[in-house]
Amino acid sequence: MEKKKEFEQGITSQKEDFSQWYIDTVLKTAMADYSCVRGCMNIRPYGYAVWENIQAEFDRRFKETGHENAYFPLFVPESLLMKEAEHVEGFAPEVPWVTHVGGEALTERLAIRPTSETVICAAYKEWIQSYRDLPVLINQWANIVRWEKRTRLFLRTSEFLWQEGHTCHRTAEEAMEETMRMLEVYRECCETELAMPVVKGRKSESEKFAGAVETYSIEGLLADGNAIQNGTSHFLGQNFSKAFDIKFLDEDNTEKHVWQTSWGVSTRLVGALIMRHGDDSGLILPPRIAPIQAVIVPVYKEASKTAVLEEAHKIHAELRGAGIRVKCDDRETVRPGFKYNEWEMKGVPLRIEIGPRDIEKGHAVIARRLDREKTFVQRAELAKALPAMLERFQADLFERARADMEENTRETSTLDELAEIISTQRGFVWAGWDGSPETEAEVKEKTKATIRNIPLEGGEPTQGLKDLVSGKPAKHRALFARAY
Amino acid sequence: MEKKKEFEQGITSQKEDFSQWYIDTVLKTAMADYSCVRGCMNIRPYGYAVWENIQAEFDRRFKETGHENAYFPLFVPESLLMKEAEHVEGFAPEVPWVTHVGGEALTERLAIRPTSETVICAAYKEWIQSYRDLPVLINQWANIVRWEKRTRLFLRTSEFLWQEGHTCHRTAEEAMEETMRMLEVYRECCETELAMPVVKGRKSESEKFAGAVETYSIEGLLADGNAIQNGTSHFLGQNFSKAFDIKFLDEDNTEKHVWQTSWGVSTRLVGALIMRHGDDSGLILPPRIAPIQAVIVPVYKEASKTAVLEEAHKIHAELRGAGIRVKCDDRETVRPGFKYNEWEMKGVPLRIEIGPRDIEKGHAVIARRLDREKTFVQRAELAKALPAMLERFQADLFERARADMEENTRETSTLDELAEIISTQRGFVWAGWDGSPETEAEVKEKTKATIRNIPLEGGEPTQGLKDLVSGKPAKHRALFARAY
Repeated sequence: MEKKKEFEQGITSQKEDFSQWYIDTVLKTAMADYSCVRGCMNIRPYGYAVWENIQAEFDRRFKETGHENAYFPLFVPESLLMKEAEHVEGFAPEVPWVTHVGGEALTERLAIRPTSETVICAAYKEWIQSYRDLPVLINQWANIVRWEKRTRLFLRTSEFLWQEGHTCHRTAEEAMEETMRMLEVYRECCETELAMPVVKGRKSESEKFAGAVETYSIEGLLADGNAIQNGTSHFLGQNFSKAFDIKFLDEDNTEKHVWQTSWGVSTRLVGALIMRHGDDSGLILPPRIAPIQAVIVPVYKEASKTAVLEEAHKIHAELRGAGIRVKCDDRETVRPGFKYNEWEMKGVPLRIEIGPRDIEKGHAVIARRLDREKTFVQRAELAKALPAMLERFQADLFERARADMEENTRETSTLDELAEIISTQRGFVWAGWDGSPETEAEVKEKTKATIRNIPLEGGEPTQGLKDLVSGKPAKHRALFARAY
Repeated sequence: MEKKKEFEQGITSQKEDFSQWYIDTVLKTAMADYSCVRGCMNIRPYGYAVWENIQAEFDRRFKETGHENAYFPLFVPESLLMKEAEHVEGFAPEVPWVTHVGGEALTERLAIRPTSETVICAAYKEWIQSYRDLPVLINQWANIVRWEKRTRLFLRTSEFLWQEGHTCHRTAEEAMEETMRMLEVYRECCETELAMPVVKGRKSESEKFAGAVETYSIEGLLADGNAIQNGTSHFLGQNFSKAFDIKFLDEDNTEKHVWQTSWGVSTRLVGALIMRHGDDSGLILPPRIAPIQAVIVPVYKEASKTAVLEEAHKIHAELRGAGIRVKCDDRETVRPGFKYNEWEMKGVPLRIEIGPRDIEKGHAVIARRLDREKTFVQRAELAKALPAMLERFQADLFERARADMEENTRETSTLDELAEIISTQRGFVWAGWDGSPETEAEVKEKTKATIRNIPLEGGEPTQGLKDLVSGKPAKHRALFARAY
């Protein structure tokens, strides 16, 4: 218990200060830390391994839906960034400018990409001539820079890693289908792999991507009741294709501008994962994403050392053979209790304890990080039982998050009540909205809540529903929350 | 044959103009093209798929040798870049500087990373306290910028993609072991996966990495007789750890500076691959790296269409099931001859032709891109035969490259003969070197050849060997060549 305290000492409790809990957890688990560059982080190996697993799951789905990866320049010439008016207005204030190379001034300043619509559109203009060249279905994994005033590890950093899909289509219908297809890929991947339930919906005018016709998002809820935007899918219409003159000769022999989409998720998902599932002992990682799914801790005295270590290594080899990401913590410099706490803090889903008495009895003890439940598993069954236990862990973790989201989703018809909910329990709040920016602004000023999205399911106004500010008939049933 | 001409028209022959052949091949096969940003390229999906396969092979080996991936900032504060004197001298002239964000000037300029020793050392200083923290074995996949005056797609671009390993060790011996271990990983991966034979050796003082104590490289030879540096592994000694004050408390309770290495390969490998294996018809890709290992081309008339397409799709499913990266080109808009030429140009190792007579006879025709050899394979044997045929292709491609390198490796004892060889056949030339920079400079001026490296095997001077310029006793038997 002493060792336990030592670990928990380092982590502020969630109730005391959730923000500090988050920072403590990220730093103490060596997921990331502050770099020497203001607003930028070092993603440390444990955090990067989580990101690699997330990447792999999204990338597989992109390829299964017909997309290919490519890579475009980091730099955006100033003249190019300026081509789409709304776009430049949205991004220019946060853009770093390269003005010199070595000792020489550049003739044209180069922006560091805040997103790649502009450089990619410049390429698409060259690549697309005929309807036969369509659709273009390309994704890029890249680093992105948006100079943030207030930063938070993973959630909001001046440089971050992401993927950005950029597609071109013959018709508006096809582009809208793609927009919704990728939104659904995002939802399914978040829920299946990251065990994070999300709400799909359309963003309001004020929250949409600079240059898009419509932005759709998946919104999740974190353990502190704040919402988080986990991914966005934009229907760009012909805004960029007209600004960049991307035309194709259609089958009917007339020239037309292509219809476009773009969509992205980023390393912010790692932050969401931590804040969604973690507890006062640290991380809880979903097995499908965890760099280490199970850790073996041998427990022995000098007399039993050889036998226990041998057995631990045997189990290690067996489980690896069964495709499990397993680690055997056979360090001799620290005691088992220290190891238990360290791996709990690091969110490893299952711990396998093996001691001389377990060997005698022909079983192993499995401890679940989620609820600290302990199970005895027959030694011979281990390699078969573990995958099922990991799947159950994944399902239970998702169900816990889903139940929490359900419990913290409320409905109101008044601004006062919304303010009350947001200042106490937080969570998602349904309310009628007349579609006016005035209501949005008033709600934000009074409660700090924003419209997360107009959900695809449930976003239609119910009979007689009124706007919670103006009292006018509601156009939408919108989802409000305070968000990161 | 007409269609064949149409394709080859687009590609200059290697003999006529190798540089133009290279550009034509890269552009026509849609591997990459010039972007809107000077000196930067768009890596198109086909080229990026090659890079992804190369990445996967290196990454697997890095992880097998105990390395983990991480990510560090794109930006290097000016004061940090300046810390290691040789390093800044080597890189400063090519560095882009960010001076403004949005409308505001920064208090300190930020360089875009030309390599990440500096930002990574700043992190290591914080992460490393005790000998227990060592070794640190970290790799980063990232984009890098070095502003090049003269660029060439893949080989030399202002922005490129690479991996950079950065490791810290307790002793000089351990760091040197790591340097050589990764050099060997590079050699083995290049030869096994990319089918490119290389020579391992040590760089001369003038060619070593800015800030390193020793640089080792793997050097390859291309189809035009020019050499190419395919990867480097640096023993950094304590140059950076002293400049950045990275210390650890050793077991003997004294503080010591760590010993470091760094090592990298980049998208330049894609260019090397093209120039090593390609011919006048375009690319030839090694099966282990090829995005498409085999392409099925159905050949039919109207009457046989349904049966042939059905059979082609069946073969496609079977081969995919066997783990082969296979494509079925069932386009109806172009004829089989056009498809043959297109996939030959794109370097797909094996083509499977299937027509009504083949179905009747129960076989398929396999055409090898390497030598256009055709084989009949029993239909029932296809899924079993293909993997073996791909392996043989890989082995034959490597052997062809190895034989070419052997044939184009010569030895000389005079500067005149070296000049003669370099101006005619080129290739590698062994010669005695007294170790002086004067000889290096003289050779470069007279022949444009440089010392590629002092090979680990064969680099010791033979009895009585003399420097080819000074006539003094040779310290080394060095490998000279003209290089990209």
